Amino acid sequence: MSADDGARRPDHAARRAGLRDLLVENGVDALLVTDLVNIRYLTGFTGSNAALLVYSWDGSQVGEDGERTVICTDGRYITQVGEQVPDVRAEIARASARRLVELAGEWQLGRIGFESHVVTVDQHRGFVEQGSGLQFVPAPGLVEQLRTVKDDYEVGRLRAAAAAADAALATLLERGSLRPGRSEREVARELEWLMFEYGADAIAFETIVAAGANSAVPHHRPTGAILAPGDFVKLDFGAVVDGYHSDMTRTFVLGEPTDWQREIYQLVYEAQRAGREALAPGVPCAAVDAAARAVIESAGHGELFVHGLGHGVGLQIHEAPPVAKTATGTLLDGVAVTVEPGVYFPGRGGVRIEDTLVVRAGEPELLTHTSKDLTVVD
Amino acid sequence: MSADDGARRPDHAARRAGLRDLLVENGVDALLVTDLVNIRYLTGFTGSNAALLVYSWDGSQVGEDGERTVICTDGRYITQVGEQVPDVRAEIARASARRLVELAGEWQLGRIGFESHVVTVDQHRGFVEQGSGLQFVPAPGLVEQLRTVKDDYEVGRLRAAAAAADAALATLLERGSLRPGRSEREVARELEWLMFEYGADAIAFETIVAAGANSAVPHHRPTGAILAPGDFVKLDFGAVVDGYHSDMTRTFVLGEPTDWQREIYQLVYEAQRAGREALAPGVPCAAVDAAARAVIESAGHGELFVHGLGHGVGLQIHEAPPVAKTATGTLLDGVAVTVEPGVYFPGRGGVRIEDTLVVRAGEPELLTHTSKDLTVVD
Repeated sequence: MSADDGARRPDHAARRAGLRDLLVENGVDALLVTDLVNIRYLTGFTGSNAALLVYSWDGSQVGEDGERTVICTDGRYITQVGEQVPDVRAEIARASARRLVELAGEWQLGRIGFESHVVTVDQHRGFVEQGSGLQFVPAPGLVEQLRTVKDDYEVGRLRAAAAAADAALATLLERGSLRPGRSEREVARELEWLMFEYGADAIAFETIVAAGANSAVPHHRPTGAILAPGDFVKLDFGAVVDGYHSDMTRTFVLGEPTDWQREIYQLVYEAQRAGREALAPGVPCAAVDAAARAVIESAGHGELFVHGLGHGVGLQIHEAPPVAKTATGTLLDGVAVTVEPGVYFPGRGGVRIEDTLVVRAGEPELLTHTSKDLTVVD
Repeated sequence: MSADDGARRPDHAARRAGLRDLLVENGVDALLVTDLVNIRYLTGFTGSNAALLVYSWDGSQVGEDGERTVICTDGRYITQVGEQVPDVRAEIARASARRLVELAGEWQLGRIGFESHVVTVDQHRGFVEQGSGLQFVPAPGLVEQLRTVKDDYEVGRLRAAAAAADAALATLLERGSLRPGRSEREVARELEWLMFEYGADAIAFETIVAAGANSAVPHHRPTGAILAPGDFVKLDFGAVVDGYHSDMTRTFVLGEPTDWQREIYQLVYEAQRAGREALAPGVPCAAVDAAARAVIESAGHGELFVHGLGHGVGLQIHEAPPVAKTATGTLLDGVAVTVEPGVYFPGRGGVRIEDTLVVRAGEPELLTHTSKDLTVVD
C-alpha cells in the first residue's frame, strides 16, 4: 500500500463506534438508519434496499453479539450483504426498516432515534403504528456529522477521484479537444469518457461545459452551442471512485484574453486563494466564505458572486458542511470541502475556479492539482 | 408535426385541472407539491429548488388569477421560471415551500394536502410550526396517480427515447462491438455513447451489461469481466429524451447456443409474450404479472423468476404502477409499463427480455422495437 492511497479498507466498526458516542450524547438507545448513503458509510453495503439499527453502549438489554448492530435487506442481496458486511448480523426482509423496528421492540430498546431529515411522514407513521412500546425520537444528521471528517481510506479515495479528473482534463487539452468549432456537449462527453478511461467508476454529476455568454450561468447544462474564439469556457466536473466524488472547475480563454477577461480571472483567482488560505481546523465555515467574498466585494462585484463558496464532498457530491455566508459549522481536521468562488456577468461571461481540499492542521491538502493560472487555449 | 412525435408541447394547465379534480375527491382545498418531478410534470419547471401550490376549484377565497396556481423558486432561477412557466404566478424565495405555506395562510386556504410520501418529518414539523391556521392533511401519490396515464406529448417523448436506445443497440451489433474479448464495461460505455449520438439527453440508469454467469445476477453492474464464447450477454439500458425514460433488455448468445440456452431463452420469450398480451385497460396489474409468471412456473422454474414483471416508466425510470404479484392497481388506457420477466440460474446464467409498452384499448403500443428472436452474435 502506498502512502498516497490511504488505508486500503474502510474501518466500518470504528465509524459505528463513533456513532454510538453520538447516540449517548443525544440521549437515544439506538439509531434506525434508513438513508442508503449513511448505511454504506457505516457498513459498506451498496444495495438499493436496506435499514440499519445501531444500538448504543448503554441502555440496551441485548449486548450478546459484540457488534450491537443489525442490518436488514431483501432476498436479492443475500449474497451481497454477506460479502460486503461480514461483521454484522443480517436479517432478510423486504420491508427492511419495519423488520428492524420489530426487532427493536422485541429487544425493548426504548428510545429509538430516527433520521427525521430523511424519513417521510408516511414512513414515520408506519413506525409508530407498529407500536411495540418504542419511543421514536427525531435524530437528524448524526451520520452526516460523522461523515464530514474523512478517515485515511476516504482521503485515499478522494485523491483517486480527483486524480482521474485531473488526468482527463490534461488529456483533453493535450489532444486539442477544447477548441473553437466544437459544441459544449461534445466537449462534455469527451471529458466524461476520459474520466472513465482514467479509472472513474461513474461521473460525479452532469458535467458543465459553458462557453461564451453561457459561462455566466453558474450551473449551465451543456448544449449544442459552439465554442468560438474569444470565449470564456468554464468546465465543472468530477469523477467517482469507490463511491467518493471529486469536484473541480477551471475556466479557460479560447485565444488571446481581453483586458476584461484577465481582470475578472485574476479577481476570481485571488478570491479562491483567499478562500483556500482561510481553511484551517477551528475556523467557522462562514469565515472561509467571507475571506473569499471580501476580495470580490472590494472590487465592487459582490452582487455577481451569487452562490456560496463551497460545500463538503465525499460519498455525495454535496454534503455537510456548507461553506457559505449563513453556514453555522466550524471546520475540523480532515473535513473535505470545495472552494469555488465565481463572478458572473449576465449575458457576457463568467469565471469560476474550484478546488477540492482536505482541511489539515498545517496547510490544507489540495486534491485537484490542475493549474489555476490563466490558461489560453489556442 | 408528424403523428409519431405526439403533441409538440405538454399541456400543463390540463394536468393541473386533472389534479384539481383529485383535490376535490380527496377533500382538500389545495395541494402543496414539493416533489421536483411532480412539479416538472405540472409546470415544466426543471430547476433544483421549487415548491408549487395548486388550489382546488372550490373552497378558496382567492380566485382572482385565472390559474389558481403559484410556484416558488429561488433567485438563481428567476429567468428560467419565467421562460418555463409563463402561465403561473411565480414567487422568489430561497425557502420555497415555506413561502407558499405563508401565502396559503394569508389566503386562509384551510385544508392543505401535502405529499406525505415525500415530505420528511422535519419538513412537516416546519410547516406546522409556521402556524398560520392551516390544517395539513397527508395526500400521498396524487400527482403520481395522474402521471401513470401518458398524454400525447409524453408518448411522443417515450417513443423518441426508445428509438434512441433501439438505434444505439442496432449500431453496436452492426459494428461487431458485442464480441468475445471485450469487457462488460467497454460494451456498456459504447452503448451509452451511442445513445447520446442518437439523441439521448442522458442515460436512463446505469447500463447493465452482464456476461456469462453474471447474467444470472438480475441487476449486475458492469465490471472488467471479459465476454467469452458461449456466454449469455444481457443488456439492460435506456435513454432519456426531454425527461422521459426508455427501458429495454435483450439477451444475446455469443456463438452457437446450447440446448439449455435455447430452452431458457424460449421460456422467457413466451412468458414475456404472455405478459404483453395480457396488457389491456381494466386488467389488474397483478394479473399481468400472473400471466407471465404462470408460463415460467409451469416449466418448473417459478423460483428463478425473482422479481416483479414490470413497472411504470415516464419522468422516472421506476414509477407507478408496479406490475407485480402484490400490486393493487388496474391498468388504464395510456399507462406506460415495462414487461420484463427473467429466469436466473445462479452461477450459470440468466435471460431477461424487456419491452416498454403503452396500454391501449386494442393492442398495446410497443415502444422498443429491437427484435426479440434469439440472436446469435458471432
